[in-house]
Amino acid sequence: MEAPLHLYQQFVALKQEQADINYTLALMQWDQEVYMPKGGAEMRARQISSLAGYSHELATSSKYEETLLALQESFKDFNTVEQTNIQESLKTLRKNKTLDKDFVVRFNQTVSESYQSWVKAREENSYTHFGPHLGQVIELSKERAQRYGYTHHPYDALMDDYEPEMTTETIKSVLSSLKPFLTDLIRKIRDQPQPDQSLFHKKYPVADQFRLCSDLAKEIGFNFNDGRLDLSPHPFTTSFNAQDVRITTRLNEDLMTESIWGTLHESGHGMYEQGLPANQYGLPAGEATSLGIHESQSRLWENNVGKSLSYIKHIWPQLTAYFPAQLAGSTPDQFFKGLNIIHPDLIRINSDEVTYHLHIMIRFEMELAMLEDQVSINELPALWNQKIKDYLGLDVPGDAQGILQDIHWSHGSIGYFPTYTLGSLYAAQFFAFADKSIQNLDNQILEGNYAPLLQFLRTNIHIYGKQFNSEELCNRICGEGLNPAYFEQYITSKYSQIYQL
Amino acid sequence: MEAPLHLYQQFVALKQEQADINYTLALMQWDQEVYMPKGGAEMRARQISSLAGYSHELATSSKYEETLLALQESFKDFNTVEQTNIQESLKTLRKNKTLDKDFVVRFNQTVSESYQSWVKAREENSYTHFGPHLGQVIELSKERAQRYGYTHHPYDALMDDYEPEMTTETIKSVLSSLKPFLTDLIRKIRDQPQPDQSLFHKKYPVADQFRLCSDLAKEIGFNFNDGRLDLSPHPFTTSFNAQDVRITTRLNEDLMTESIWGTLHESGHGMYEQGLPANQYGLPAGEATSLGIHESQSRLWENNVGKSLSYIKHIWPQLTAYFPAQLAGSTPDQFFKGLNIIHPDLIRINSDEVTYHLHIMIRFEMELAMLEDQVSINELPALWNQKIKDYLGLDVPGDAQGILQDIHWSHGSIGYFPTYTLGSLYAAQFFAFADKSIQNLDNQILEGNYAPLLQFLRTNIHIYGKQFNSEELCNRICGEGLNPAYFEQYITSKYSQIYQL
Repeated sequence: MEAPLHLYQQFVALKQEQADINYTLALMQWDQEVYMPKGGAEMRARQISSLAGYSHELATSSKYEETLLALQESFKDFNTVEQTNIQESLKTLRKNKTLDKDFVVRFNQTVSESYQSWVKAREENSYTHFGPHLGQVIELSKERAQRYGYTHHPYDALMDDYEPEMTTETIKSVLSSLKPFLTDLIRKIRDQPQPDQSLFHKKYPVADQFRLCSDLAKEIGFNFNDGRLDLSPHPFTTSFNAQDVRITTRLNEDLMTESIWGTLHESGHGMYEQGLPANQYGLPAGEATSLGIHESQSRLWENNVGKSLSYIKHIWPQLTAYFPAQLAGSTPDQFFKGLNIIHPDLIRINSDEVTYHLHIMIRFEMELAMLEDQVSINELPALWNQKIKDYLGLDVPGDAQGILQDIHWSHGSIGYFPTYTLGSLYAAQFFAFADKSIQNLDNQILEGNYAPLLQFLRTNIHIYGKQFNSEELCNRICGEGLNPAYFEQYITSKYSQIYQL
Repeated sequence: MEAPLHLYQQFVALKQEQADINYTLALMQWDQEVYMPKGGAEMRARQISSLAGYSHELATSSKYEETLLALQESFKDFNTVEQTNIQESLKTLRKNKTLDKDFVVRFNQTVSESYQSWVKAREENSYTHFGPHLGQVIELSKERAQRYGYTHHPYDALMDDYEPEMTTETIKSVLSSLKPFLTDLIRKIRDQPQPDQSLFHKKYPVADQFRLCSDLAKEIGFNFNDGRLDLSPHPFTTSFNAQDVRITTRLNEDLMTESIWGTLHESGHGMYEQGLPANQYGLPAGEATSLGIHESQSRLWENNVGKSLSYIKHIWPQLTAYFPAQLAGSTPDQFFKGLNIIHPDLIRINSDEVTYHLHIMIRFEMELAMLEDQVSINELPALWNQKIKDYLGLDVPGDAQGILQDIHWSHGSIGYFPTYTLGSLYAAQFFAFADKSIQNLDNQILEGNYAPLLQFLRTNIHIYGKQFNSEELCNRICGEGLNPAYFEQYITSKYSQIYQL
């Protein structure tokens, strides 16, 4: 048998070869969203498919598998970072091996048809034709869960792809605490006067918005030496290595808040990617630990920092320098209150920090019901509409604004939605502990000194990559696991102020 | 043996797989020049090297080689396009096989060191340390020529990589006709009054330059549905398929001519790429035939069209709309004359349409002298300086502005320079025949109707890819091979007007 060190080096080389292809694919996809001319679509699709083929070949090569399995034998000889890389790679390999070629082909074909059907159904504002496709996606998701294997609930197995080792029990328990809190809050503020929105109903020239977005991203710590900000129809963050991280935003003259707080959100994602250890390129210890933790980073900067009164006060000179006419006569306090309005919306992505999570609960509950066969595929739209009425007090005028609004189910992502709520909860919890650890954090935000907070996130989260899962990270930082009380406390404190409760 | 058709399809599939990788590499290089943040350089280099490894593996795989050699046996069963694809692929394979791994490693290492040494020598304005490296490059170039094989001159073999089947004899004969013509013209105008340059010595805001460049590229026929214009320090054209062609320009407030005529130049390259047959993706019949023909397309649009009085008259309303203050009181005629000034310059890339070719002659003559061992490596700078004095009447103040000005020799491109002059000569020759074939071409240019000219180039050059080499194309279009008389006629006619000869 070969020496463990030599084997480990061989493993790293193979893994980094895979990364070269995968990050190249990320570049092709970034270019496709951001700069590719229309005509390029057809051949780009074939080039991507060709590269994806190589990526698959490398990830399933017998040489890679043998190297990895041999390393397992001498697992105890390695340090913790090396162990993370071996263990996480073994886990991925094991999961991939449970999905044979036949399953992958069936799954890909099903979600491809399901996606097409969803696009059409949304255009036609009618769930009817999409229903059977969703049924097939659910059946295949159950099969996927069976193949992966699980102890308690098939949802555990599905969620593991997005939020490793998170349990359905934890999500259930957290959401059942959150639900009465949020519905109660929404009821309370229903009769309160709403903050003035007039200053947002003005024209904000897009070129100025973009310059301001760049300024603000830079100021909070997104490193433009190791990244870029561009425009795309759907904002996203991607990374080709820790020193080349690309974020995007979109510009709308009538909706300046979207570009600015969208940029803060993507900057949070981007700073996580930039903070991953560069010397672990292509290895699990150099990758983000979960979608929930990723989302905690974006939401912390967008909401806990970006939508605070101190932040608005800090950026007020910049805002009014770019938009003197639009903001004439307004105050940071007005802006803060208007920005944080609570207003139930039919659409998840248009929702505020409070009602957003009721949208997630509806999706989580429905996913569980589907997997547990508690509801038939035909009954789903009625169930959706009933829940929207119960939780948000709204009537759904049609499926396009109801059950068909999200792409996720159509392309087979079951178990994904809870990561959004986890993001907000972890953000509040981490922020609360950052506040304990950093002297006068609120004042630092007011003064535009974001380095201590970024440093806190860097040293407690970013540098670890996948060394700790989300609950382990949370325990290390807070001495306890996920606890919605921090989010509730954050929301109560913020909205008492805004709505004079 | 397998059926020829099946074999051909297999060959196409293998070739297009190679193309997927090679065009992906082109995207990575484009991004590197145009958008990549500084920090991304290190890992991008490794990703490029990884992909280049796959490209090499595919191009040298035994499956590909066997398929191609089997096709050779049934060559006569195929149509002309298929024969082009087989024949050109066989030629590339044959050439590659003459270069064994040892040679490739030695060559790459030598040019890598030579390039580093050139960068340093240029900074230090001293040839001394670069000389020995250049000597090694020349020795390896001789070896490359031996390995490729040739009938008449090693230079034929080297030039073949850039201008297939062109001969040293042809270049010699063409240049020896051109040299007295050009030196004579330069002597004649030396005592004539120079056109007024004052309108170019103004500030032209770069944002307006960029918008004008886009307008003009679009107007002459560069298709923005199938391409883009971006900025980069060194303007270039690249392509990821015929429907995704990227051109770049650079902006300088003090030098508006550079961005505008640079854009016309790259648009010419870009329109050639866009005009290649899309259904021959990844195959020789879908690729440009030579660098000389590529350069003929760029120079035709930049010079024969773009620097004509009719073109200036046509774009005058656009020019004056963007730059009303700068051009107040000027006329299209003044602009035309100022733009076309002849002024010997030490630097090739700063040179005008006339003196430029004397720079090429110097390089061509020196390359021949080096390959034929007629000059020692140490004597080269003195020889360079002497030729600059003889041909251009200039004194070289230092090697940086002399023999060290171009990158080409340092990275082993010997036999490349003549393609620039071929570009101008073919451009003039093709343009003369376009003028015969298109009714009132000059008036079409004046009226901004560029479609007939582009159509002429599309149907006579672009659609053929590598089906014909440069001389075959020239014979098909003009009924004769390369003939410098057309260029001389173009230059005489243009400059008689400008310098009142």
